[in-house]
Amino acid sequence: MIRVLLSCLILVWTQASGADETATRTARGNATLDVITGGKGSPAVAALADIAPDLGRWIVDFAYGDVVSRPGLDLRTRELATVAALTALGNAAPQLKSHIKGALNAGAKPQEVVEVVMQMAVYAGFPASLNGISAVREVFAERGIEHAP
Amino acid sequence: MIRVLLSCLILVWTQASGADETATRTARGNATLDVITGGKGSPAVAALADIAPDLGRWIVDFAYGDVVSRPGLDLRTRELATVAALTALGNAAPQLKSHIKGALNAGAKPQEVVEVVMQMAVYAGFPASLNGISAVREVFAERGIEHAP
Amino acid sequence: MIRVLLSCLILVWTQASGADETATRTARGNATLDVITGGKGSPAVAALADIAPDLGRWIVDFAYGDVVSRPGLDLRTRELATVAALTALGNAAPQLKSHIKGALNAGAKPQEVVEVVMQMAVYAGFPASLNGISAVREVFAERGIEHAP
Amino acid sequence: MIRVLLSCLILVWTQASGADETATRTARGNATLDVITGGKGSPAVAALADIAPDLGRWIVDFAYGDVVSRPGLDLRTRELATVAALTALGNAAPQLKSHIKGALNAGAKPQEVVEVVMQMAVYAGFPASLNGISAVREVFAERGIEHAP
Amino acid sequence: MIRVLLSCLILVWTQASGADETATRTARGNATLDVITGGKGSPAVAALADIAPDLGRWIVDFAYGDVVSRPGLDLRTRELATVAALTALGNAAPQLKSHIKGALNAGAKPQEVVEVVMQMAVYAGFPASLNGISAVREVFAERGIEHAP
Amino acid sequence: MIRVLLSCLILVWTQASGADETATRTARGNATLDVITGGKGSPAVAALADIAPDLGRWIVDFAYGDVVSRPGLDLRTRELATVAALTALGNAAPQLKSHIKGALNAGAKPQEVVEVVMQMAVYAGFPASLNGISAVREVFAERGIEHAP
Repeated sequence: MIRVLLSCLILVWTQASGADETATRTARGNATLDVITGGKGSPAVAALADIAPDLGRWIVDFAYGDVVSRPGLDLRTRELATVAALTALGNAAPQLKSHIKGALNAGAKPQEVVEVVMQMAVYAGFPASLNGISAVREVFAERGIEHAP
Repeated sequence: MIRVLLSCLILVWTQASGADETATRTARGNATLDVITGGKGSPAVAALADIAPDLGRWIVDFAYGDVVSRPGLDLRTRELATVAALTALGNAAPQLKSHIKGALNAGAKPQEVVEVVMQMAVYAGFPASLNGISAVREVFAERGIEHAP
Repeated sequence: MIRVLLSCLILVWTQASGADETATRTARGNATLDVITGGKGSPAVAALADIAPDLGRWIVDFAYGDVVSRPGLDLRTRELATVAALTALGNAAPQLKSHIKGALNAGAKPQEVVEVVMQMAVYAGFPASLNGISAVREVFAERGIEHAP
Repeated sequence: MIRVLLSCLILVWTQASGADETATRTARGNATLDVITGGKGSPAVAALADIAPDLGRWIVDFAYGDVVSRPGLDLRTRELATVAALTALGNAAPQLKSHIKGALNAGAKPQEVVEVVMQMAVYAGFPASLNGISAVREVFAERGIEHAP
Repeated sequence: MIRVLLSCLILVWTQASGADETATRTARGNATLDVITGGKGSPAVAALADIAPDLGRWIVDFAYGDVVSRPGLDLRTRELATVAALTALGNAAPQLKSHIKGALNAGAKPQEVVEVVMQMAVYAGFPASLNGISAVREVFAERGIEHAP
Repeated sequence: MIRVLLSCLILVWTQASGADETATRTARGNATLDVITGGKGSPAVAALADIAPDLGRWIVDFAYGDVVSRPGLDLRTRELATVAALTALGNAAPQLKSHIKGALNAGAKPQEVVEVVMQMAVYAGFPASLNGISAVREVFAERGIEHAP
């Protein structure tokens, strides 16, 4: 909890300051990652250390530090937008599960996540939506979320 | 303006009542479509009348009446999620433009729409994001939106 | 066998009648589902009961009741078209397996299913076709289909 | 008409004979192409002559000669399966139009083509289906098909 | 010509040095962009200035400065890999044309570009390959490339 | 080693000769397959024998014999282009692994394969690239490749 609050402070601070660009991007990216992962860090980034560590750095510095940390849209909506896109594309189940957790950690209610995935039946077809619901079910089970639809 | 308010009333009413299912679904779908299109109706639905009118009915009754009208998620977030998905899929430019307008009509700020489309560079690649920005630019030009990023 | 015949009767009846729309759509959808699943019901729909029951209702009422039950095209061709689309999209293996079974239940010969999946090598590439054949092989093994190509 | 009948004869003959493989594949491919294009030949193949003539040869010899000419599935169903796949993929509008014409030339009724495209709303989402209907509308207009849905 | 050589020098220099990260990334990105665009700069980046300038900055600093400039693979192969991916995805025609030009500017022969696009018929289907050839034809015409296949 | 050299000889010979087309295509396809699989043959082709043997023949005769064997582009670049396309499409993990091995067998360095997959983060998004790296990791582990990035 304290770690998440600290992350938010870093986030505000790094968006204001401009000094030491790379350190700032990394700090900002890690702060956003901390909110999204609930302070657990990204297993995907860690797993890249042996084979493609720069890809892991880009995830922290670019994806989270430059893009997802931007102030123009709240993190809950950003994560729900990512859940929508990954459900529609349908080719990245592990990342979809991560962002379902991320949406919940960023403040989305369980039913809101379910609604986004259900809505994709309209825009990407029922099979994509059904596979998205399977990912939601796994996340809810891992977290012990009691979900009465 | 009055028409949009009226639409919202119908929306609340149809979500509560259960009588005369088909009429209810159609009324609810049209009410949501009115909010999303700013009271102009859907040109896509009208264009289907000559060749596949039932597809148009499904859009009103199912897509808007059953799915997008659901109470569990606000319409602004729903439309931003759809913008995210269509930008990521990258194969439906006319529908993407409609939902960019829909997001604005449902209360999203111009910059919020831009943020969702930019974010897709991370999740679906830069070409998908660039083509999404082209759609945003066309909508902003049509609407005379002065957008200082 | 009798159950499937009964389903066909319901299907004809519900396409003719217009009374009590929702009950009609559900009955018609379940009748078509019965033909496609050989009277076993859809495990996908059942699995949605805990987390997204309305998505399951849409599958019965909309996907099967409104769309797949339409009289303008025979069910065998509809299921083969779905096998083609899911093989080409390549992102929904469980649903592809269901519709391979559905095509067989709707009267397609095993070789016809194989032909559709092979043909996708031309329109969606060999990897999509190869993964489609893997799904066909699993279904044929489950059903004990002796297939001499 | 005579040309199409002649094509069918060649098709039957080349499926039976095994002599002179390449000439046989080309003849068989052109015969099937003749049925699908109504004897007009493929503009796509002709257009490849200047830049990638072997790609054009593969279309005739492999795609039409080896695959689409196979006896295990009738040509009407093959073309409807291709219409389904290209509507679902949504990234090949000119080819979709060609195969809508091909389905009609192979004996599918206009309404059957419309049904396949409408059905894709379920399996690939409404935007893909709507863009498929736009392709159908263009083909029907070119051919002067009076279509009362 | 001199500008391209200068770009190569900057590229080598920025890969060696570590000082002033952001300026380095931008310089390196612009140097690589100069090689790829033949010193003309990216019209896509310029077009973003009014609506999403940070997306343009990410293209220069991240896409070209961090990724495409990396020393582990030659630029000609990188551009051919991008041509392959965009032909296969089939949803980004303007970007495909840019990278066909980029491959030629990075030293690929016209026939090598044609080969990559033809090969995609195997991995993503003939429609994707045919649309890729259309993009190649437009680029060759713009550049007055006499191509005898 | 001798088998691979022999394969190369067959490849050169079959590209020069024109006699007995089908035998030539098969020999040429098998020769290229031998280079790509390191003389092990394709398990995918073998697996098709029971259910769709002609699809296996097309892979040898058409995909490898007609397309991948063409002289206009070296095999290493062809395999890297295929790795790029399959990483971007993201719907064919087994085939991606085969072509990662194929790229290595055709002479690409481990780091070159990693670079192509990392680069796809730019053109198809980070999730596609991350899943590509998972495939690379499995191949490197199977082969005991010590890879110090």
